[in-house]
Amino acid sequence: MRYFIIFSYDGSKYNGYQKQPNKKTVQGELEQVLKKINSNNTVSVSASGRTDAGVHAINQCAHFDLRNDIEESRLRKSINGLLPKDIYIKALKKVSDDFHARFNVKAKEYIYKINMGEYNPIECEYIYQYNKSLNIEEMKRALKYLEGTHNFRSFTKADDVKDDYRRTIMKTDITISAKDKITISLLGNGFMRYMVRNIIGVLIEIGEGKRKSEDIIAILKLEDRTKAGKTAPAQGLYLNKVIY
Amino acid sequence: MRYFIIFSYDGSKYNGYQKQPNKKTVQGELEQVLKKINSNNTVSVSASGRTDAGVHAINQCAHFDLRNDIEESRLRKSINGLLPKDIYIKALKKVSDDFHARFNVKAKEYIYKINMGEYNPIECEYIYQYNKSLNIEEMKRALKYLEGTHNFRSFTKADDVKDDYRRTIMKTDITISAKDKITISLLGNGFMRYMVRNIIGVLIEIGEGKRKSEDIIAILKLEDRTKAGKTAPAQGLYLNKVIY
Repeated sequence: MRYFIIFSYDGSKYNGYQKQPNKKTVQGELEQVLKKINSNNTVSVSASGRTDAGVHAINQCAHFDLRNDIEESRLRKSINGLLPKDIYIKALKKVSDDFHARFNVKAKEYIYKINMGEYNPIECEYIYQYNKSLNIEEMKRALKYLEGTHNFRSFTKADDVKDDYRRTIMKTDITISAKDKITISLLGNGFMRYMVRNIIGVLIEIGEGKRKSEDIIAILKLEDRTKAGKTAPAQGLYLNKVIY
Repeated sequence: MRYFIIFSYDGSKYNGYQKQPNKKTVQGELEQVLKKINSNNTVSVSASGRTDAGVHAINQCAHFDLRNDIEESRLRKSINGLLPKDIYIKALKKVSDDFHARFNVKAKEYIYKINMGEYNPIECEYIYQYNKSLNIEEMKRALKYLEGTHNFRSFTKADDVKDDYRRTIMKTDITISAKDKITISLLGNGFMRYMVRNIIGVLIEIGEGKRKSEDIIAILKLEDRTKAGKTAPAQGLYLNKVIY
């Protein structure tokens, strides 16, 4: 029986989503709990994609197969009861065997939070403490240049070799979420490794006036990672939504 | 030379403010850093009061003496450079030798955050995950009964023996801080151990309809800890302000 879950986690406590030997990972915790529920038989959890160390998820999605047909709300409660408090299953439902949480993804939304105000030690794992003001209008203009289908090689992890670096960004936005705090959102059909954090890195340089919004166009055209900016820290990044 | 500091910390990473042997505490971290700055001579930090394990501070205050007269902004930067990222000095100024960060306190404000919406693993160390709705109007009425000077013995730690359990609460409020999230604030001339969390414990029982707002009057009159409710968890509590 195949189950689909929507779950949330605090990435600051984990070495990323993906299972790694001898490291605390979100997938590792989930599979350990599911093994108990599956009469001690190993369970593989397939998520929509990995998130790196320190990156949070508000609505990550995954599927897994269990030997038994268990009532949805009961199963969800059992799993949550066994999971650590920093991982939580928000929804669980049975799906057909041909559903795949990674292959069936249509779009994903990431959000990135920045504090332009005073350094705040209480939120330092959850909001990037940039602590200087940014030109939000200029950043918004830059984001608009990213919308559409482009070759995003300049924004991927340098050693990530792919057949195709083209991705489509459907929607971008920046909202002021609280005093001196902004949330940048990116909705796209796929994001390569470090792509969001590399985009945010350039956006910050645009916001601080080191680059102009139009520079985004030139960076995209160069298709060269070394031409973009720094990778923004993991702390501000959240996987917000997965669309199937 | 005496220095006064206003500082902020993430209490989830510490065994409370107050120094304890072989435990990670906020005072311990501060004194270790100040000792380095004070040419390896021990420095005692006197805060406005302790905060328990898991309790956060937005504007905690303290004083300490150093051998040398150091320029304020330089000293603040040096300390922040050596402190862990979850403790941060927001302000530092020289004060006269007769200033005392504990004895001179006129009032303190605590805030308590509750999430009435869905469980959120990302904020579970920062907002009490109550995850059910509360009758906020009834809680506001109850808070009003606490304003003024009362004997708060019913709301202190049971084994805390004091000469005088009277304290004055000058102002109370509940605001909706985000969707399904509330922030309760209490401004008073002094708070005994667990007093805020015990008040919140009763308030929650009032908000869920187990008690009426007027019950607060009877609980105060009984002067008996066993007559109040549960102690609310540390996670939602913040020392917000110290007034001198």
